[in-house]
Amino acid sequence: MKIQVLVRLKNGVLDPQGKAVEKSALKMGFEGFKNFRIGKIIEFESNLPKNKAIEEAKKLADKLLSNPVIESYEVKVEE
Amino acid sequence: MKIQVLVRLKNGVLDPQGKAVEKSALKMGFEGFKNFRIGKIIEFESNLPKNKAIEEAKKLADKLLSNPVIESYEVKVEE
Repeated sequence: MKIQVLVRLKNGVLDPQGKAVEKSALKMGFEGFKNFRIGKIIEFESNLPKNKAIEEAKKLADKLLSNPVIESYEVKVEE
Repeated sequence: MKIQVLVRLKNGVLDPQGKAVEKSALKMGFEGFKNFRIGKIIEFESNLPKNKAIEEAKKLADKLLSNPVIESYEVKVEE
């Protein structure tokens, strides 16, 4: 089973990286896009039973993969 | 419309960051997970018609958001 943890900056947290990408996109002539936000995607495999894997993945996301002060995360499972 | 571009290292490309996370997870007692891969998720908004937005997002991913030599990308649209 493959697990995806998507880590994003919380709403309201400034995203300088996103701003930089937005500026570059505009300079390159891409005008149809705005409000860029950059995050991380951490993918890994597990042989644990599905519910146990999700529970453990959330603990891992809390303790290692994200900074709870400024980031939120979402756990997805691909069978 | 919200667009997601998921940028991953291509298969076979070494992922030292993923290895480091795997090692830390093991040290913290998370034993049910392996083969960690770290990628980027770039999210942005668009008012373009859906097909045009996807087409432009792919061009943007090719030219700015990913390094085609070592990375692949996936474009997703959230209505």
